[in-house]
Amino acid sequence: MLPNLSFLIFSILFVASNAAVQDFCVANLKGPDTPSGYACKDPAKVTTDDFVFKGLAKAGNTSNIIKAAVTPAFVEQFPGVNGLGISAARLDLAPRGVVPMHTHPGATEYLVVVQGKITAGFISSANKVYVKTLNKGDSMIFPTGLLHFQLSATGVTSVALVFFSSASPGLQITDFALFGNDLPTPLVAETTFLDPKTIKTLKGVLGGTG
Amino acid sequence: MLPNLSFLIFSILFVASNAAVQDFCVANLKGPDTPSGYACKDPAKVTTDDFVFKGLAKAGNTSNIIKAAVTPAFVEQFPGVNGLGISAARLDLAPRGVVPMHTHPGATEYLVVVQGKITAGFISSANKVYVKTLNKGDSMIFPTGLLHFQLSATGVTSVALVFFSSASPGLQITDFALFGNDLPTPLVAETTFLDPKTIKTLKGVLGGTG
Amino acid sequence: MLPNLSFLIFSILFVASNAAVQDFCVANLKGPDTPSGYACKDPAKVTTDDFVFKGLAKAGNTSNIIKAAVTPAFVEQFPGVNGLGISAARLDLAPRGVVPMHTHPGATEYLVVVQGKITAGFISSANKVYVKTLNKGDSMIFPTGLLHFQLSATGVTSVALVFFSSASPGLQITDFALFGNDLPTPLVAETTFLDPKTIKTLKGVLGGTG
Amino acid sequence: MLPNLSFLIFSILFVASNAAVQDFCVANLKGPDTPSGYACKDPAKVTTDDFVFKGLAKAGNTSNIIKAAVTPAFVEQFPGVNGLGISAARLDLAPRGVVPMHTHPGATEYLVVVQGKITAGFISSANKVYVKTLNKGDSMIFPTGLLHFQLSATGVTSVALVFFSSASPGLQITDFALFGNDLPTPLVAETTFLDPKTIKTLKGVLGGTG
Amino acid sequence: MLPNLSFLIFSILFVASNAAVQDFCVANLKGPDTPSGYACKDPAKVTTDDFVFKGLAKAGNTSNIIKAAVTPAFVEQFPGVNGLGISAARLDLAPRGVVPMHTHPGATEYLVVVQGKITAGFISSANKVYVKTLNKGDSMIFPTGLLHFQLSATGVTSVALVFFSSASPGLQITDFALFGNDLPTPLVAETTFLDPKTIKTLKGVLGGTG
Amino acid sequence: MLPNLSFLIFSILFVASNAAVQDFCVANLKGPDTPSGYACKDPAKVTTDDFVFKGLAKAGNTSNIIKAAVTPAFVEQFPGVNGLGISAARLDLAPRGVVPMHTHPGATEYLVVVQGKITAGFISSANKVYVKTLNKGDSMIFPTGLLHFQLSATGVTSVALVFFSSASPGLQITDFALFGNDLPTPLVAETTFLDPKTIKTLKGVLGGTG
Repeated sequence: MLPNLSFLIFSILFVASNAAVQDFCVANLKGPDTPSGYACKDPAKVTTDDFVFKGLAKAGNTSNIIKAAVTPAFVEQFPGVNGLGISAARLDLAPRGVVPMHTHPGATEYLVVVQGKITAGFISSANKVYVKTLNKGDSMIFPTGLLHFQLSATGVTSVALVFFSSASPGLQITDFALFGNDLPTPLVAETTFLDPKTIKTLKGVLGGTG
Repeated sequence: MLPNLSFLIFSILFVASNAAVQDFCVANLKGPDTPSGYACKDPAKVTTDDFVFKGLAKAGNTSNIIKAAVTPAFVEQFPGVNGLGISAARLDLAPRGVVPMHTHPGATEYLVVVQGKITAGFISSANKVYVKTLNKGDSMIFPTGLLHFQLSATGVTSVALVFFSSASPGLQITDFALFGNDLPTPLVAETTFLDPKTIKTLKGVLGGTG
Repeated sequence: MLPNLSFLIFSILFVASNAAVQDFCVANLKGPDTPSGYACKDPAKVTTDDFVFKGLAKAGNTSNIIKAAVTPAFVEQFPGVNGLGISAARLDLAPRGVVPMHTHPGATEYLVVVQGKITAGFISSANKVYVKTLNKGDSMIFPTGLLHFQLSATGVTSVALVFFSSASPGLQITDFALFGNDLPTPLVAETTFLDPKTIKTLKGVLGGTG
Repeated sequence: MLPNLSFLIFSILFVASNAAVQDFCVANLKGPDTPSGYACKDPAKVTTDDFVFKGLAKAGNTSNIIKAAVTPAFVEQFPGVNGLGISAARLDLAPRGVVPMHTHPGATEYLVVVQGKITAGFISSANKVYVKTLNKGDSMIFPTGLLHFQLSATGVTSVALVFFSSASPGLQITDFALFGNDLPTPLVAETTFLDPKTIKTLKGVLGGTG
Repeated sequence: MLPNLSFLIFSILFVASNAAVQDFCVANLKGPDTPSGYACKDPAKVTTDDFVFKGLAKAGNTSNIIKAAVTPAFVEQFPGVNGLGISAARLDLAPRGVVPMHTHPGATEYLVVVQGKITAGFISSANKVYVKTLNKGDSMIFPTGLLHFQLSATGVTSVALVFFSSASPGLQITDFALFGNDLPTPLVAETTFLDPKTIKTLKGVLGGTG
Repeated sequence: MLPNLSFLIFSILFVASNAAVQDFCVANLKGPDTPSGYACKDPAKVTTDDFVFKGLAKAGNTSNIIKAAVTPAFVEQFPGVNGLGISAARLDLAPRGVVPMHTHPGATEYLVVVQGKITAGFISSANKVYVKTLNKGDSMIFPTGLLHFQLSATGVTSVALVFFSSASPGLQITDFALFGNDLPTPLVAETTFLDPKTIKTLKGVLGGTG
């Protein structure tokens, strides 16, 4: 039979409580941000809800020009992932929907189709193209920083879950970067070989100026 | 109009082809393994299929004692994730199914319920318990190395997709570690406070000896 | 003979004083914590004592149920290790003393016996057991996140110094995690295959409820 | 006066020679590549020339359509940088020369103008544009993975030295990625909003098919 | 023709603006410092000038005893490099100028000669010497933490640009460390085998005491 | 009562055995070395003895000019630490023994005195000296890459255990680097301000030439 462990409990818990901060570092989004992530929320105030995110349950609104929606669960939406090297997003693609050519500057993406059928691909530094049409349950991986895209490959709505190797993967959509800001048209023309007229048209559509 | 860019093409592609190896490093599972992952497959032999995994599409067999199945997409099953800091698995839970108490020694886990309802939880170094019942679409995060578990919370089969912040997260199921090998019963008793009879019973069930 | 270097002194020290912050980052335990460790104490206020720790000199109190004591020198006790990827602890084991089955979620452990004789072991993800009885001066390594334990192997008090590959290695003692908190008995039973009566007995001894 | 140190020499050098491999790991480009870089050349065969690179001394050939040349000193050209987290390149820009919009998927770039005048810029994930005309001696930094470009801003040849936070930074030129391979025209159209005619023209110029 | 993308713009920019903090983390030098670098400046206040540094354009003053000057662009001078794993410096060497034996405790150095001729070298842990005389345009790499030096090898002023694999590489000049502070002469003598008279002379010249 | 778990055993062990390689990577010292460490020994051939090192049990031979001995347990002596970010050494100091001024280019050092009394110190990049006399049980930390030393502070033999934040910390003893190889005397003189006569004397004693 075991005697009462109260002596042990107090001496060991002393250690354990001091070590607690290393398990996780829920982001205090109002605290300072650093190169390794946000400052940590006081562990005494952390609750289960800090580790749970309900925002991926609902379909994004695909009533837009790309017939697609991306719902992120990055550190800003889900502070529990801060410092843990992982985050997620939900991707909804109506028929003919498309996630345009883009990169995540700081993370690899792992995609799983959970509904429908999606054509996805990426282009390597060696300029080789890797494209595949994925069925429900299929996975595809897009290495860090490379241009990639996803398109609906079916007449019904498709859904994918995507995961990133960083709590803050970033997102740079090529069209927005080129045509959706104030980068002067001559600069865009010189650095992309597109003609000014095409650029100006796209700037008009995507909200760019200059 | 643009002139022909062949000069450019050759000079730039020279650079690009040399840089190709850094984009990804598909595992050559027969090559040497290192602390950073497996040696890379020859990039010239890499195809789209190296970046696609179909093994998560099919339900795992839950006709077992835990009424659960874990289907991994770690580097050994999906060599494309080598060196990219991410991997995945599919979790099938029949009614009353359970993934017993376990840890991943080398990765944080991010879980999303894609069907049914699952009760999941983890225990921190400070010995605090974080448990939640998750509906379809809900996410939960389990920080690196901490004990955690998942249980069916509904009368129908539940499915979750889980992602890890490593291509090789590891898996240590506490019961198997304690009762499923040749760790001598007196050693288990001394290090767990369980009585030898309980230990021997569990060793019998889980295939342990000693 | 050398001329006076005052010109040099001023120009070079300008550089050197600006670079000082990178050498070390003594923890300001009252400042914000981040995923990479605590904010740094003002370097101008750092003294030699910030790099010295005297707490491992004294034997821990082994008059408890496990006849063992763990004295940590983690970042909370020894702020000088902040950000440096290393920390330590002292382990005292009276005869029949035991450090129960546990993991360090965030670090590898390197143990050296400095007095007496200790039996130590760990269990791998592949469920293989590695156990050894160590004499004075012998070392053993326990890879990150794996279950391990230490027991006295002699009739006199044993002492070990243990080192970790992190300033904040964490500590999760399996028995405390399972039986020393408010995790409900049915949940423990379902996730460990232990019977409720055994669980309730251990909860009573280890201070758990539910 | 000091006695002869031969005893010391032998005992200490024993240690030192064993530790030598950690100082550097000159790439054996014919050995296996891994996620952390190439296997190391036998340290006994390493010479000073492994740490010296002469390829940046000579101007690149700017007689091409972009009136620009990039001469890399990445791990494939300069094996001495393997595993050291740094590499370089030389950039020559004739009048009206341009390095088109591109990214380095795996590294931050630090540029210094050593001759002439260069207009450079990058676009952030938040779609903000940062552009500056740099004179001789000026530096600019381009964070990891973001779209950026450089253009001649003078009537004479400009030269810049650029450095990367990786031995293998990669290079993805947007125009080549979109128009210089076999990515089908309809796919490019759907993922970039460019019209098929523009795409086909650029594919013709840049050597793309499909 | 493309319809108006305003729906898309708003939904996507929501994501993008949340992800912005991960692209870069310009140092707020008055904010807390951490093991991963300084806290980030508010991204809304970041301008192009935060990514541009003009301090390397001007020659350093070599009218000093070493006939050399080092002008740093570390995080303290160039806050834009914070967290990006790279920094730079300019090296001016008048004829007979020398950068004395030194180490950078936290970074590899990559040097390019941009004017004149420089003899440079380093010493490995295995005590092997690697020395080379470098002409304009030649590069040399000095692995992390090893003793190295640079000397003028010509009768005219030489200039080099040096880059580091850290935003905060540190600088420890051996002579200053040994003779330019209050380390007691007997301690220096015992730990260097130099005689006290030589030490006292150098302390006098370099401003040391004790 | 629990039924037989054989179904579970087979399905789960399949996963576990595939994950085994990630727990550890015992060095195959005859295999390729990489920037992240040596290639791994075949896990099937790994035994408990790969994780145990007995070389620190025996006192080093201090019958030499420095009356000191350093016995390493780096990856070359103790292959089990490969890739785990930690290693160790034993330090024996006879009365008047000294470990001369040195650096570890790739690791922080954590020292604990286990016998006797030791004076230890280091010098920061800001050229500040941190020195302390340590009694049995006292710890001191020496941040990565900085010059440091240890001396006997008592009339009896002292022993310390030192630990490093790397499996391959390196060791560069300043005197050996300056005077124990073929670095030409004029080069040493120019880069250290020592006079050629002193240099030649030390070269004679320490086995240097040139």
